[in-house]
Amino acid sequence: MAKAVAACPGFRFAGLSAGIKKSLRPDLGLVVADGDVPTAAVFTQNQMRAAPVLVSEKRVKSGLARGIFINSGNANACTGERGFADAESMAHYAARAVGCDEKRILVASTGVIGQPLPIDRIVAHTPAVATALRPDGLDDFVHAIMTTDRFEKRALGLLPVGKKETRLVGVAKGAGMIAPNMATTLGFVFTDAAVSKAFLQKALRATIEDTFNRVSVDGDTSTNDSVFVMASGAAKNTLIDGGPRGVEFQKALFDVLDDLSRQIVRDGEGATHVVTIDVLGGPSAAAAERVARRIGASPLFKAALFGADPNWGRILCAIGNSGVEVNPSKIDVSIGEVQIVAKGQGTGGDSAERAHAVMRRGEYSIYVHLHGGRGEGRHTTCDLTVDYVKLNADYST
Amino acid sequence: MAKAVAACPGFRFAGLSAGIKKSLRPDLGLVVADGDVPTAAVFTQNQMRAAPVLVSEKRVKSGLARGIFINSGNANACTGERGFADAESMAHYAARAVGCDEKRILVASTGVIGQPLPIDRIVAHTPAVATALRPDGLDDFVHAIMTTDRFEKRALGLLPVGKKETRLVGVAKGAGMIAPNMATTLGFVFTDAAVSKAFLQKALRATIEDTFNRVSVDGDTSTNDSVFVMASGAAKNTLIDGGPRGVEFQKALFDVLDDLSRQIVRDGEGATHVVTIDVLGGPSAAAAERVARRIGASPLFKAALFGADPNWGRILCAIGNSGVEVNPSKIDVSIGEVQIVAKGQGTGGDSAERAHAVMRRGEYSIYVHLHGGRGEGRHTTCDLTVDYVKLNADYST
Repeated sequence: MAKAVAACPGFRFAGLSAGIKKSLRPDLGLVVADGDVPTAAVFTQNQMRAAPVLVSEKRVKSGLARGIFINSGNANACTGERGFADAESMAHYAARAVGCDEKRILVASTGVIGQPLPIDRIVAHTPAVATALRPDGLDDFVHAIMTTDRFEKRALGLLPVGKKETRLVGVAKGAGMIAPNMATTLGFVFTDAAVSKAFLQKALRATIEDTFNRVSVDGDTSTNDSVFVMASGAAKNTLIDGGPRGVEFQKALFDVLDDLSRQIVRDGEGATHVVTIDVLGGPSAAAAERVARRIGASPLFKAALFGADPNWGRILCAIGNSGVEVNPSKIDVSIGEVQIVAKGQGTGGDSAERAHAVMRRGEYSIYVHLHGGRGEGRHTTCDLTVDYVKLNADYST
Repeated sequence: MAKAVAACPGFRFAGLSAGIKKSLRPDLGLVVADGDVPTAAVFTQNQMRAAPVLVSEKRVKSGLARGIFINSGNANACTGERGFADAESMAHYAARAVGCDEKRILVASTGVIGQPLPIDRIVAHTPAVATALRPDGLDDFVHAIMTTDRFEKRALGLLPVGKKETRLVGVAKGAGMIAPNMATTLGFVFTDAAVSKAFLQKALRATIEDTFNRVSVDGDTSTNDSVFVMASGAAKNTLIDGGPRGVEFQKALFDVLDDLSRQIVRDGEGATHVVTIDVLGGPSAAAAERVARRIGASPLFKAALFGADPNWGRILCAIGNSGVEVNPSKIDVSIGEVQIVAKGQGTGGDSAERAHAVMRRGEYSIYVHLHGGRGEGRHTTCDLTVDYVKLNADYST
């Protein structure tokens, strides 16, 4: 994304170091809208919800927010009552610095789990981060939310609404994990489109299922995962509240979230391949998705992806363990353009060598046809690599 | 197990090489009882069931068998109609060589998936393996069922029944996998006790749930997993058909299967640690077991085991992803004798260092108390290691 679009009308951004990270890299980020604007969010389904998730989830029910205050380097998770009070303090001091109702400030944290938030450092740096807010401050904001990410994750969507052109600017931090930290996915989409509160929430719920909820690095959902969408309305377009305009907006939101979620997989720890599993012919869409997810979660399959090994037995085995009723003798499997299984049996010939060639690509698709209905489902995952194990085995207390 | 007990009265065993394995190591095994004897079996829950599973499952419903004919080096899985016919042929020729009804011969296979069984080689060597049968041939049988196992897996139980002493002799092959092969667990228990058909099946079903079904290397269930129990009755004890004698027999069977299943985990590919997860205080036993299984299936957790990293956040995260409703602020976790989490928060101090010391042991337990009921569940797993990935990533077509 060009620097020119490192901004979204109606928002100001900032990021700086408050010394939470030992590296002294940026760890405090703030985004503020020009007023209270329609805001939607979805949060982790893990029951171990971090304090900022609990605080933000409650506040976003109003459908309005002025801003989001984020820290990296400490997840404020498994921190009990004190953690909850700290998350509320973050919002309180940010609201004071910005000059708004504290209920309109959402919070997010990512980093080490189980350690008290260094709230004094955060409070001390809050006026500075508020002072640093500027329309072209998105770069600083993006750096402040990163943890072990190898690269920044950004996506841009342009959406004409009537005679106005609106934009959707997405940024995210990824699934990188390093002991004793916990992976956290944070996603943000800022749009200058005018969108109703109700439709914004609806559009996010509809698109998250097929984007952020359809990718995995290792199948674990963290304590802090959150995705936020804020709509400033600065483009002054006709309000988007469903109908054909709503459909178009939802498509644009999907594209931005899809792009971000794929970048997160690409940056999965140690990942060398990004593989999309498309399951066709399932008894239902949910069943097809379940099969795709099960394949994508199999360590045996993921290790085979690392070695570019066209080991189709592992794919059939994962299908057989999915809990979805299938007819084994009907299943077809293709790796990229190479059919490797027909009616449940290997196609033989040179198909293994040709499939191996496909699997040496950095990104490719695997197609599974169950011939048991019309349900389709997709899951995107990365390989299980030696580096993944090394990164996550380090004893570093 | 001493060589002296490499036998079980009422059974004869044999094993030899039929050239199915390129290594020319033994790959054809046969066990035959002196007559048709009570026999029970349980099979993989994977829907992709190999041909020998389909054949044996049907035949063992009678509760009686004369023998079991096993090959290693080829799983006869995903082989369609031809595979089914080949599995029946194995039984047919074994029955002819032994001189019994072919319906009384069960079959099992383990090895490469998706390749036709070299049935001609097997048929050609069947008379030789039948001729080789002898009461002290268990060693040859054990070698013939092994694939990538690093060591033989055996267990012995002695059970007094009235004035008779009976024995249970268990052997198994393990969860070792190497591309493009598929892991298969095969377990066999031979006993000279007299046990009724109905009770034998009941005892196996009751014990398998807490033994073979409570361990995992990587969570994938194979196409060929099978466990068989045969009771020759050669000890001439009072028939075991339930009651106190049944309870004692079931305990002895549990111990043998528990021992074998732990040996399988210990021999998991690349495994350097065997860890038992005991979950207490669950809303039900099933819920507690589900939590234990989810922890044991988390790649992040298993990578931490490899590095002896007392990363309790990953344990809480897995609990939160288990689908079992828990109260995060009540959870206690101990690694061995070291409590690392109290009421959902880290205990701090030197607990991480002390837990790290526990985790450097080859085998230890992790205790999770949910304080949400009286349900208890257990799962045993091994670590996710660099060698696991290397072994399973090899492209070897």
